[in-house]
Amino acid sequence: MESTKVFDKLKEECGVFGIYSKDGMDVSSSAYYALYALQHRGQESCGIAVNDGGVITKHRDLGLVPEVFTPEVLEKLGQGQMAIGHVRYGTTGNTNRSNAQPLVVRHIKGTMALAHNGNLTNAFELRERIELDGGIFHTTNDSEVIAYSITEQRLQTKSIEQAIEQAMYELKGAYSLVIMSPSKLIAVRDPEGFRPLCMGKKGESIVFASESCALDSIGAAFVRDVRPGEIVVVDEKGVRSIDTHCKDKGHMCVFEFVYFARPDSVIEGASVHVARQRAGAYLALEHPVQADVVIGVPDSGLDAALGFAKQSGIPYGVGFIKNRYVGRTFIQPTQGERENAVRIKLNALSATVAGKRVVLIDDSIVRGTTSARIVRLLREAGATEVHMRISSPPFINPCYFGTDIDSKDKLIACRMSEEEIKKEIGVDSLGYLSVESVKKIAEGANCNFCVGCFTGDYPVDPPKEVPKDKFETKIRK
Amino acid sequence: MESTKVFDKLKEECGVFGIYSKDGMDVSSSAYYALYALQHRGQESCGIAVNDGGVITKHRDLGLVPEVFTPEVLEKLGQGQMAIGHVRYGTTGNTNRSNAQPLVVRHIKGTMALAHNGNLTNAFELRERIELDGGIFHTTNDSEVIAYSITEQRLQTKSIEQAIEQAMYELKGAYSLVIMSPSKLIAVRDPEGFRPLCMGKKGESIVFASESCALDSIGAAFVRDVRPGEIVVVDEKGVRSIDTHCKDKGHMCVFEFVYFARPDSVIEGASVHVARQRAGAYLALEHPVQADVVIGVPDSGLDAALGFAKQSGIPYGVGFIKNRYVGRTFIQPTQGERENAVRIKLNALSATVAGKRVVLIDDSIVRGTTSARIVRLLREAGATEVHMRISSPPFINPCYFGTDIDSKDKLIACRMSEEEIKKEIGVDSLGYLSVESVKKIAEGANCNFCVGCFTGDYPVDPPKEVPKDKFETKIRK
Amino acid sequence: MESTKVFDKLKEECGVFGIYSKDGMDVSSSAYYALYALQHRGQESCGIAVNDGGVITKHRDLGLVPEVFTPEVLEKLGQGQMAIGHVRYGTTGNTNRSNAQPLVVRHIKGTMALAHNGNLTNAFELRERIELDGGIFHTTNDSEVIAYSITEQRLQTKSIEQAIEQAMYELKGAYSLVIMSPSKLIAVRDPEGFRPLCMGKKGESIVFASESCALDSIGAAFVRDVRPGEIVVVDEKGVRSIDTHCKDKGHMCVFEFVYFARPDSVIEGASVHVARQRAGAYLALEHPVQADVVIGVPDSGLDAALGFAKQSGIPYGVGFIKNRYVGRTFIQPTQGERENAVRIKLNALSATVAGKRVVLIDDSIVRGTTSARIVRLLREAGATEVHMRISSPPFINPCYFGTDIDSKDKLIACRMSEEEIKKEIGVDSLGYLSVESVKKIAEGANCNFCVGCFTGDYPVDPPKEVPKDKFETKIRK
Amino acid sequence: MESTKVFDKLKEECGVFGIYSKDGMDVSSSAYYALYALQHRGQESCGIAVNDGGVITKHRDLGLVPEVFTPEVLEKLGQGQMAIGHVRYGTTGNTNRSNAQPLVVRHIKGTMALAHNGNLTNAFELRERIELDGGIFHTTNDSEVIAYSITEQRLQTKSIEQAIEQAMYELKGAYSLVIMSPSKLIAVRDPEGFRPLCMGKKGESIVFASESCALDSIGAAFVRDVRPGEIVVVDEKGVRSIDTHCKDKGHMCVFEFVYFARPDSVIEGASVHVARQRAGAYLALEHPVQADVVIGVPDSGLDAALGFAKQSGIPYGVGFIKNRYVGRTFIQPTQGERENAVRIKLNALSATVAGKRVVLIDDSIVRGTTSARIVRLLREAGATEVHMRISSPPFINPCYFGTDIDSKDKLIACRMSEEEIKKEIGVDSLGYLSVESVKKIAEGANCNFCVGCFTGDYPVDPPKEVPKDKFETKIRK
Repeated sequence: MESTKVFDKLKEECGVFGIYSKDGMDVSSSAYYALYALQHRGQESCGIAVNDGGVITKHRDLGLVPEVFTPEVLEKLGQGQMAIGHVRYGTTGNTNRSNAQPLVVRHIKGTMALAHNGNLTNAFELRERIELDGGIFHTTNDSEVIAYSITEQRLQTKSIEQAIEQAMYELKGAYSLVIMSPSKLIAVRDPEGFRPLCMGKKGESIVFASESCALDSIGAAFVRDVRPGEIVVVDEKGVRSIDTHCKDKGHMCVFEFVYFARPDSVIEGASVHVARQRAGAYLALEHPVQADVVIGVPDSGLDAALGFAKQSGIPYGVGFIKNRYVGRTFIQPTQGERENAVRIKLNALSATVAGKRVVLIDDSIVRGTTSARIVRLLREAGATEVHMRISSPPFINPCYFGTDIDSKDKLIACRMSEEEIKKEIGVDSLGYLSVESVKKIAEGANCNFCVGCFTGDYPVDPPKEVPKDKFETKIRK
Repeated sequence: MESTKVFDKLKEECGVFGIYSKDGMDVSSSAYYALYALQHRGQESCGIAVNDGGVITKHRDLGLVPEVFTPEVLEKLGQGQMAIGHVRYGTTGNTNRSNAQPLVVRHIKGTMALAHNGNLTNAFELRERIELDGGIFHTTNDSEVIAYSITEQRLQTKSIEQAIEQAMYELKGAYSLVIMSPSKLIAVRDPEGFRPLCMGKKGESIVFASESCALDSIGAAFVRDVRPGEIVVVDEKGVRSIDTHCKDKGHMCVFEFVYFARPDSVIEGASVHVARQRAGAYLALEHPVQADVVIGVPDSGLDAALGFAKQSGIPYGVGFIKNRYVGRTFIQPTQGERENAVRIKLNALSATVAGKRVVLIDDSIVRGTTSARIVRLLREAGATEVHMRISSPPFINPCYFGTDIDSKDKLIACRMSEEEIKKEIGVDSLGYLSVESVKKIAEGANCNFCVGCFTGDYPVDPPKEVPKDKFETKIRK
Repeated sequence: MESTKVFDKLKEECGVFGIYSKDGMDVSSSAYYALYALQHRGQESCGIAVNDGGVITKHRDLGLVPEVFTPEVLEKLGQGQMAIGHVRYGTTGNTNRSNAQPLVVRHIKGTMALAHNGNLTNAFELRERIELDGGIFHTTNDSEVIAYSITEQRLQTKSIEQAIEQAMYELKGAYSLVIMSPSKLIAVRDPEGFRPLCMGKKGESIVFASESCALDSIGAAFVRDVRPGEIVVVDEKGVRSIDTHCKDKGHMCVFEFVYFARPDSVIEGASVHVARQRAGAYLALEHPVQADVVIGVPDSGLDAALGFAKQSGIPYGVGFIKNRYVGRTFIQPTQGERENAVRIKLNALSATVAGKRVVLIDDSIVRGTTSARIVRLLREAGATEVHMRISSPPFINPCYFGTDIDSKDKLIACRMSEEEIKKEIGVDSLGYLSVESVKKIAEGANCNFCVGCFTGDYPVDPPKEVPKDKFETKIRK
Repeated sequence: MESTKVFDKLKEECGVFGIYSKDGMDVSSSAYYALYALQHRGQESCGIAVNDGGVITKHRDLGLVPEVFTPEVLEKLGQGQMAIGHVRYGTTGNTNRSNAQPLVVRHIKGTMALAHNGNLTNAFELRERIELDGGIFHTTNDSEVIAYSITEQRLQTKSIEQAIEQAMYELKGAYSLVIMSPSKLIAVRDPEGFRPLCMGKKGESIVFASESCALDSIGAAFVRDVRPGEIVVVDEKGVRSIDTHCKDKGHMCVFEFVYFARPDSVIEGASVHVARQRAGAYLALEHPVQADVVIGVPDSGLDAALGFAKQSGIPYGVGFIKNRYVGRTFIQPTQGERENAVRIKLNALSATVAGKRVVLIDDSIVRGTTSARIVRLLREAGATEVHMRISSPPFINPCYFGTDIDSKDKLIACRMSEEEIKKEIGVDSLGYLSVESVKKIAEGANCNFCVGCFTGDYPVDPPKEVPKDKFETKIRK
């Protein structure tokens, strides 16, 4: 949220949630609290669809969860036996209410609600085929393509889960889905498992969520991750699994561990918080430096800073205070005062850095402008040296699987060498974590990793026809 | 608007507008002012879609035109060469943002925006057929069915207008449409011409609107009505017409003249204001009475009251003062104070009615409760006799062509005889306009009339499969 | 409301209301509905103060009554035994929330809430004296001066009503007050009775309101007008009156009958609606003309038009349709489209005026620009002659007693002769009602009239020290 | 903000800001950004008053700074040569817009705007005296008493600063003031200096703020603290000081260092962040324990936890993840789910605490319920022992100098022994910082400390007449 305004950070596409209650649990407010816990995965829009005896009611709008879901709105949504929810991130200029999810559509066999995290690589081709059959599209979401694909299969299959199973043969790319039919809740993960999705349980209720922190927030116990390629079906008969598309360990996006996920989540068996500390520790080993204090850029660099400090023996310190109230409605400084943008959000702590050689840890550098300003704050506060350490390798390739890196032009690592970046952001030394190490940070994780954005080597073929700006224009002529 | 809250009135489905500008006219604000003028045709939601060089941007929301379209929103909509707009009425409980129009969809040949006034009689069958082909529906609007039908034809035709022409062979019922493709603005009226639609001109710009009052509001000159069954196409080559579906004079809904349309509109060559005065005059002839003053229920009964007064020679008087500020956010009196609901909106003028025998004119009686309260106000204000005259025949049949009469149970004329109604609302005498006369009120109108709601005799077959509440439930299981 | 935006009309300062309930009547919602009925007297801001066992809670804000008082706000205000309320008009640029009323202050003997309609002529002198004693002012309202004056007297008197009685010796000008102490509700009217104030009764509850239409709206019976100079005290002992300051009939502002008051109000025994019809009838006698139809400018000219028609024998017609939805948030046309401003609000009815010689009635001409536009609309609609008749004499002097005529520069009648005005607004003839006749319109009224704005002859001396713009600047240095 | 909703924390009364610009600096947006930086000192309401050539315009409302000050509002406030601003905290039920500051009043010599942080101990007596002289009060703020006191003195003195100097002889208690006259900006601190107030400089502009973090946020350089008892006057002649009321070092509220102030502020020469680390270090010395990890309760316990860890040698860990999006509109769990309230805001990190003996640091315990829930979270996450350490002594006495401790009943330390508290919150051991140590945390601070809330020994006499709930009821009868 704040990132989109003051800082330049990569953004996750979405977070999803689903609940099937057998024991009268309040599905609307469970979805509300769970989406709250997943808010970091998307701040542009959010939505909840509630299923009461087969009748699905939805509410979606632009805004944060507590802004969109007032007590009145939650009450109007009412109660039911199932609910699914979605949070979605925002890119400038395309904040379109029509793209908010969950998608709710009627097809020949009834109603279907769908929440999607990820990005198809063949959406363009699929959309063209559907349009040639007379299909019409209301949104620019891949999710509508998925809905059509399942609907088509539904005409020739006996159940929604069989339709999904068949549709998966043509859906390429990243998708963690929660789907609600009149009588079933279904969770699906693409065969590579690019995006996380886990299952939990509270009493007789089954829940699915992008991250385990959402389970914690409603007091549900973690059961297990949905497996790459797995379809988990919940209905009155219980929980069952279809594993036709399951293969090996898949390739989880490593950036979930580096930055996207909440530190208190456990993904594929590995603690995100621990992974970040380990990234810091590897950094200390790969790029040692003589210094007096290790500090992190709040909030995403703090865990790695702690890991770096422990590994290196250099004391950990609090280098910045972040204004807790900088929110969405914050008025941006005018052009002439751009430098102030960072200052309003972060203040360097002289008491920590004055007269000190400082190791500054951040998780990534996107455009470099924010990093340069932060380094300037440290110098003004009296730091004598600033050694920047980044807990991931440099981005040099596009991501096609659900993040918003949309153009090489904006990525500093595509335009400059490390030496040039060092000068650009004004640090005494600069070190990135190696690709080898980043693959090892998620200790004990039961998966392989997609590191395509660092290496250009993707587990699934990138789109054949790539629109210039990676995401298709709003409406084609 | 107010009617939906305090009074019980029939409601029109919608109003539509479209503009094609060749000379840089501000299409967004033209749509804004025109929809303002059409606000009486729908107060639940509204929307505008602007076409700038083939890229269509839209904004739709629940609320009145000036509430939804703030200066910021209008500015964000931006400028273009074409725009279409829509206002939609509200029924309790189904105020659903997803149903707001214009509908904007992408299909194989590009983008299409569509605004619809009316109601299909075979929407159910068409939807079923489309779903069997794999189609999915986002809304419960007939308009989405129309969009699918046109899209299917578009696959086999050379132009959007040909696709519309073909689609019209399967679309049954009432539809006045304004459709915008990347390069064309198209106006369509069903072969019976149930709902009005007219064409105007301002400089080099062509405009279409449900009523001529919208042309007046933007200073456009009236050109002509779109003919029943006609397709009018506007593009860079100019204006042309397809009349394949045109037949005779069609059957315009007579209630447009009785109540729906604004009195300053001219429809099919007849002044609505004059038609209402004539209705009053016929009433005076059909149901004469000895009395001291003729008054109308504001605002819809005033014109007929004037006509009754002139015909009968009984002086016209102002019987009620209406609070001009009663709007949408008005807090309703609690159950125990229901009687006050009318009192807050209307106040009877003792100076006019005290000690007098009063003729009270209204355009219709729906449930009867409001009429009873109004009569009570008059008695309290000192009226010695109250003779009610209604400027239309009694409703005793459902309407399938775009109004919200949804159930016989609510219609007093279905439940009671005239004698019983007279007692129920507490008047000394009661008279309805005859069906013969109501057909004659629109003097000089170049059309026949649909009087199905009075007679049960419809110009187009009613739906075969009629859902219990006439409008299908929100989402079928 | 609308007038302030699109039209140029004189504006009343305020409306007041008070209720003392002995029988558990809902005082908050009574105030709400009554202020609703008084909304025409002020649309800038409004407020209600509720007294529950001596504890006074208030809510005031900018906006219309239904905008400011949502169900949540009304519920938070809670219940009590007494309430007072206020609506206030808006002048451009001075929309200041601090000036909203009722004023609620604490003084040595407790709390006092005060709602004021009118304008003091010696506020400047009184404020200076109070400041010299160490007083501080939060607002620029005269009402705060009144509160100080009463508070000072309260130090030396035994009761709030005695304090008011003493304060009245120094308060000069126009004031209709409703004052609430912890245990009493008091209504006060200045000795001239410039502004109306009446008393009503519902069950055991006593109410006061600026106009009787507010009593009607809550089902209260009219008891009598508060007399000029009278103090009416309501407490647990009952209702009593102090008449020390009562003298003769006073001088009621005649413009209350011409334009300010709602037609359904009865003031000083005379019906406002009837007074307006009589104004039209006198006009017909003073300025006869050969014509085909008489029409009024909605809404304020309609009653007089009816009176003119009846007196002259020329038929009454509906000349304009007014858009019922033009409200406060309406986007104004840009400078180049100013002409449209009237068109969006009013549409001339060709059916009524085309080919006709038209008598056009309005209640007043302030700047003339609106009149000119309205006349233009009629000509465009086909009127062959337009004869304007104004149901009041020309304004040529400032008003110091509670209206917003603030500068001679804006008044057309101060700048031009009648012949020039005729040309300016483009009519074939023009006639104003005479001062002699305007004094006679309120048939049976038990009062004399202030006609100072027409004659310059005021019943109370105007302010000695007159600030340039009549109303003092917001905050003096 | 969040604290008031989910957690029970002490609350600071207010934050103040002032700016006098000689070089055209944007005073409105400077006030905006500075109040943003001071938002932690008050989240109920805020306001800014701008002085443009002696004309003061203000805007105040309930809400956070970015909610109240939209771009439109800031633009309407306009520019000027001076501005003052205020943020105010919220107590349940008394969220009254009338109490928002700055107070702007007119008196005999002109206008005065005033922003106040603190609490008078003789407000009750002063108000009574003023009311006996005929004064009326609009608010329940002490600030209005201060305004009256200064206004009275102004009648007999030559300048506003002399009036303030004289008024200070009767004002008792805590007050850090920023006052704006038509031509001067004045900063005042009570002789004990209970609340902080510092001076900064940016170019030719002089600024005052409650904390130095506000100077940093607008890029102003810290100059010095305003001295206890000092009056600093800024006008076109420059900056000058009146030190009549200055005496020794005064008694700064020690809780500013423990909890209220932002860690990046420097107060009386001491870093708040360092003071909190030192509090943690003293705790480690006073209450040593064998354990595996030291964690802090976010955000206020983190600094002390780091200090404890460094002093004790026990590793510092991240024990909780706090949801960054829990804001003001967050829907509270229903009664039955109260336990969840903490869970939604905080999640314990199993990776840090599972199987560990945990030292848990917080800055204070108010009611104990939150602490108990937090401890429960740790146990559920697998902590084997929980040793709680509090970085301040127990509260056992009321504060009369500007915080919201209003009743002994709510303070757990007044109701229970340490042993009982230990059981109540479910910890294995509990240790509070001693009074002797808390006085030493602000290393190098140039002041003495008020520790009255711990000892009952106050530097200024508490109020003689203490209303039952410490803060007077809203409106006295």
